[in-house]
Amino acid sequence: MIEEKADAEPTEEEFEEVLILDDKGLNLRIVLVEPESEGNVGSVCRAMKNFGFNDLWLVNPCKLGDFAKAMASHAQDILEEVITVGTLDEALQGCDLVVGTTGKPSESTRQHLRTPYFTPSEFRTMLEDKAGRVAILFGREDFGLSAEELARCDIVVSIPASDEYPILNISHAVAIVLYEISGLEGGDFRLASGEMLDLLYSHIESLLGEINHPEHKRDKTLLMLRRVIGRAMISQREYFTLMGVLRDIELTLARMEEGDTSWVENN
Amino acid sequence: MIEEKADAEPTEEEFEEVLILDDKGLNLRIVLVEPESEGNVGSVCRAMKNFGFNDLWLVNPCKLGDFAKAMASHAQDILEEVITVGTLDEALQGCDLVVGTTGKPSESTRQHLRTPYFTPSEFRTMLEDKAGRVAILFGREDFGLSAEELARCDIVVSIPASDEYPILNISHAVAIVLYEISGLEGGDFRLASGEMLDLLYSHIESLLGEINHPEHKRDKTLLMLRRVIGRAMISQREYFTLMGVLRDIELTLARMEEGDTSWVENN
Repeated sequence: MIEEKADAEPTEEEFEEVLILDDKGLNLRIVLVEPESEGNVGSVCRAMKNFGFNDLWLVNPCKLGDFAKAMASHAQDILEEVITVGTLDEALQGCDLVVGTTGKPSESTRQHLRTPYFTPSEFRTMLEDKAGRVAILFGREDFGLSAEELARCDIVVSIPASDEYPILNISHAVAIVLYEISGLEGGDFRLASGEMLDLLYSHIESLLGEINHPEHKRDKTLLMLRRVIGRAMISQREYFTLMGVLRDIELTLARMEEGDTSWVENN
Repeated sequence: MIEEKADAEPTEEEFEEVLILDDKGLNLRIVLVEPESEGNVGSVCRAMKNFGFNDLWLVNPCKLGDFAKAMASHAQDILEEVITVGTLDEALQGCDLVVGTTGKPSESTRQHLRTPYFTPSEFRTMLEDKAGRVAILFGREDFGLSAEELARCDIVVSIPASDEYPILNISHAVAIVLYEISGLEGGDFRLASGEMLDLLYSHIESLLGEINHPEHKRDKTLLMLRRVIGRAMISQREYFTLMGVLRDIELTLARMEEGDTSWVENN
């Protein structure tokens, strides 16, 4: 029984499998979620090229035609190399940090997601020493990112704007965020990968069950923990330490369940 | 003869006339010079409202129709209250500081205008303690502001962008500059008025003649002095001191010309 539980834990080999050490510095991906205006998509291409970015992904976008080309102006290369996918998950494949953007959020949304919002300039500072692949999400023209999509984000960036009319045109929002972070080369603080974080969260979730955390609170607690860990932008090394602690808790719980207290002497 | 020259100098009363003491804090005006796309004008209106600005002037613009309205979105009030004029001079009436914007300038332009370019963030810092009316100029979609229009500016702001494609869409440029300076309230360092500066420059110009500054150098020297004084953003108080010095030089020159050296004893 103990062995079965132990087998369910990630082994050192599994840890090794998800370890990514090859890339240094920052790799930035722009993701537009269900853009509705081809003109905006073209304008986003132009702004990206203006600030030296080129990795654009579109989730379930509108049709792109001549107006997108006209607005892209001298950024036809970005428009031609855009990657179109059907779901957000596909666009986030291989990303270590997922960043949402939003206009001034309603207090209720703020509450629900339990998250502070960062300005583009704070976001720049946060990225300065990082290495890894970062996806920056921009939502639909009419209602931005859904609560579910925002919950999927590790951090959320919001552009400070007038209370009277805080909703920017999407290409303006992209231009301002890229203006702030352009020229960033990042550092050698290697972010834990998205794959690592998924594994970490699934262990936390199962742990919440094992310790009988009230069932009606589990989802909210898990979301809050995701927020905290996401915002902390943990490194690969920190990931291994956290996973080690989780594994120790799980092993101990399993042994105690079996009435095995030999581990007390062993440690 | 001395009296005639003295009469040509600004009197204390003339100084008083141009003194403006009524306004505190910053008053910001956006001026688009010959915009060619009504969509861009509408987008500029939206960006202005997003960041709390409302004073928009257009110099000799394209026709504004339904597309401008569509792009202005919830900033119809700004679009309706736009002021259209035929010349740049009209748009700058009553402004104390004229700020040009430009994409990455060619080295030759840089050389000719003898001016450093400021980033939007440096520009924000420069405005922090100022009081007065500031016009920010954005040029045509295809070639920006002319060399002559840039020469008319006290300072020039340039958005750092990719060497490969440094020319931003005009509404993106407006959005980024306004994002940087939004929320600025200014201080009590009252800028010398545009009228004062004109008077100062006309006195410098006539002085260059009186001291036989080489004629072929005069225009360039005057432009350089305009640049230096414009960039220094002088206050009203500093204006009076400079004018006082100029008047003393001119009076002394006039007296020496007449062979009158009594002033030496008088001082």
